[in-house]
Amino acid sequence: MGKHAIVVGLGFAGTVLARLLADSGFTVTAFDRRPNVAGNMFEYERSNGVRVHMYGPHIFHTDRKYVYEYLSRFSAFYPYSHRVLGQIDGKLVPIPFNFTSIEKLFPQNQAEKLKSELLEHFDPDSRVFVSDLLRHPVAEISALGQYIFEKVFRNYSAKQWGVPADSLDASVLRRVPVIIGKDDRYFPDSIQMMPIFGYTELFENMLRHPSISVHLNSDALKRVRPHAPSGKFLLDGVPFDGPVCFTGSIDELFDYALGALPYRSLELCLEDYPVDYYQNATVVNYPNEENFTRITEFKHMTLQDIPNATTIMKEYPIAFHPGGRMVPFYPIQTDENRSLYSDYLSLCGKYDRLYLCGRLAEYRYLNMDAVVDSALQVFEKIIRDRDYE
Amino acid sequence: MGKHAIVVGLGFAGTVLARLLADSGFTVTAFDRRPNVAGNMFEYERSNGVRVHMYGPHIFHTDRKYVYEYLSRFSAFYPYSHRVLGQIDGKLVPIPFNFTSIEKLFPQNQAEKLKSELLEHFDPDSRVFVSDLLRHPVAEISALGQYIFEKVFRNYSAKQWGVPADSLDASVLRRVPVIIGKDDRYFPDSIQMMPIFGYTELFENMLRHPSISVHLNSDALKRVRPHAPSGKFLLDGVPFDGPVCFTGSIDELFDYALGALPYRSLELCLEDYPVDYYQNATVVNYPNEENFTRITEFKHMTLQDIPNATTIMKEYPIAFHPGGRMVPFYPIQTDENRSLYSDYLSLCGKYDRLYLCGRLAEYRYLNMDAVVDSALQVFEKIIRDRDYE
Repeated sequence: MGKHAIVVGLGFAGTVLARLLADSGFTVTAFDRRPNVAGNMFEYERSNGVRVHMYGPHIFHTDRKYVYEYLSRFSAFYPYSHRVLGQIDGKLVPIPFNFTSIEKLFPQNQAEKLKSELLEHFDPDSRVFVSDLLRHPVAEISALGQYIFEKVFRNYSAKQWGVPADSLDASVLRRVPVIIGKDDRYFPDSIQMMPIFGYTELFENMLRHPSISVHLNSDALKRVRPHAPSGKFLLDGVPFDGPVCFTGSIDELFDYALGALPYRSLELCLEDYPVDYYQNATVVNYPNEENFTRITEFKHMTLQDIPNATTIMKEYPIAFHPGGRMVPFYPIQTDENRSLYSDYLSLCGKYDRLYLCGRLAEYRYLNMDAVVDSALQVFEKIIRDRDYE
Repeated sequence: MGKHAIVVGLGFAGTVLARLLADSGFTVTAFDRRPNVAGNMFEYERSNGVRVHMYGPHIFHTDRKYVYEYLSRFSAFYPYSHRVLGQIDGKLVPIPFNFTSIEKLFPQNQAEKLKSELLEHFDPDSRVFVSDLLRHPVAEISALGQYIFEKVFRNYSAKQWGVPADSLDASVLRRVPVIIGKDDRYFPDSIQMMPIFGYTELFENMLRHPSISVHLNSDALKRVRPHAPSGKFLLDGVPFDGPVCFTGSIDELFDYALGALPYRSLELCLEDYPVDYYQNATVVNYPNEENFTRITEFKHMTLQDIPNATTIMKEYPIAFHPGGRMVPFYPIQTDENRSLYSDYLSLCGKYDRLYLCGRLAEYRYLNMDAVVDSALQVFEKIIRDRDYE
């Protein structure tokens, strides 16, 4: 009957692995609990014709050419450079903070002074971190860093993580960029492209392979169970000798034996309007004034030409609890949680045919390209590990 | 074609109205967006055989005999007296706080003194309010009130409503009872009964009528729209002359034109265990130690005899946002919100065939018996209002 692999979860990690395994001669049995493939990338058309991302906006951007080339086998892509505005003191300014943001928020004299100070100390068009501004010896520059922290990030992060604003200090800004110039693209990556008919079709094309059987609405953990005495997984009670690629949260795989891995979730609320456009950018951030963190208008991203109809999504950060309605989005990266994750990893270590891949299974915030890259590497490891028969 | 009525929502309000209208000669078209009837009373059997309430435990209790008698037409009921324990300082004590709670939490001398002080100032077996203890001139009694507020209610309410514990004062306790004796029933009502095969069957029996057509998975608001110029509702674009019974949230009926009515929600998480019982009561409250407020074990309530299997539910209070995944449970009763509700009521006033009924449509916390009672009254009003043809 040949080589057989199991894939649990059909987001990017599971879908890329399923396809790579099928292309290299495995028969693949793939499960997802949802009624659809594509995981959090799932995209569908509303009754007004607008294509939306059910689990929040997913923008593909990468510097890893091989990742883009791999995905391009399954869909054409169109160029799309993501742009974000933030509502600061009632004005809409580019995020990341750039020279235009400075011009819009400060009196002209001060703005000119700030820009020349920045150009004197940093390379033009470079992206520096807010933390670099904050600790800068020039007082105007560190004051600008403090301003950006207060107006753009403090309350936004407090909402995002559900913590009091005054408990946050500027250390959260370590990786937050500021642009020394007028580039207003959100991402600096050399490749910024979107699948031409949407992610769902990209995923369906990847999974359309005679050796892949896809089981939707199907809770894999009812059929695929770890069996500690043998160090193997059981499929429907029978020892399974092939690779088991697991892309879910590993606390669930072990019935939360060591406790639940904490995640943050989002309540994602769609609204339709009978107008051409609701706002002037794909995403507008609301750091301070609202309970939601941002509004996405999908037409700016899908580039659909639909008159008198648009759909927006508001994002309200919210708690996650296993077994409830909300979806686990963001691992909450504290030392305690990482240590819990690493205890679960030790449990996983007993199963040498188990492969973990993706944002949930790796308990790390990973962009889509990093997940695809991880799947490419996990596949190499599966092939290297042993001669699966 | 005779008299025709529309019912939106098939919880208690909509279901009782649908049945009453059908029994009095109306043809009833009833909608619910969910795949099931019974609204938040929906009950189903899990794979381990335990019957659970998907939307949290629903205990029927009433002093309104006519309400119970009406429902008894559609199901037999079995007696069930609800009991709740609270985990206080590591001990499980009866809630409402009673003499047993005092004995478990205080040294014997002090407990005896407290009980005789209480019996001296209050009627035996009466239910008094914590607020009555708090403002009592006897120092021991007011100190007991303060103790109960601190240990049993302050943190519980803070979790329930998502507010800081130190923002709550004892005014939240106005209606919270303390029992002057050993009665450990949660409710004082004379009728405490549950439908013998569960709520879902009760609802199905109510709706099994040749003049009622039930449309599940069906968003009524896509078909039933208010039409301001005529003061009528349109059904599929055609003016509708019969009564429209609406049991949803009225902000949604008017596309949130005045803003959203705030609700609090619950993340309800089920867990199965291969043991006879998980805890010693139907409900255990955790005011202080956990992120959830309480744990319900359904077998204590369904009285099912199932060995080696039980199912519990943990309740985590959480924010509600229209259009998201969470369900609106509790109206947040502030002056501001009541005033917003009353503005929506003015909009409703333009439609003289519109009838509002139920916890959402009335924007009030109503027990099940009160909702059924409200439906009985709304039905009388429909019959009185005009000669529907």
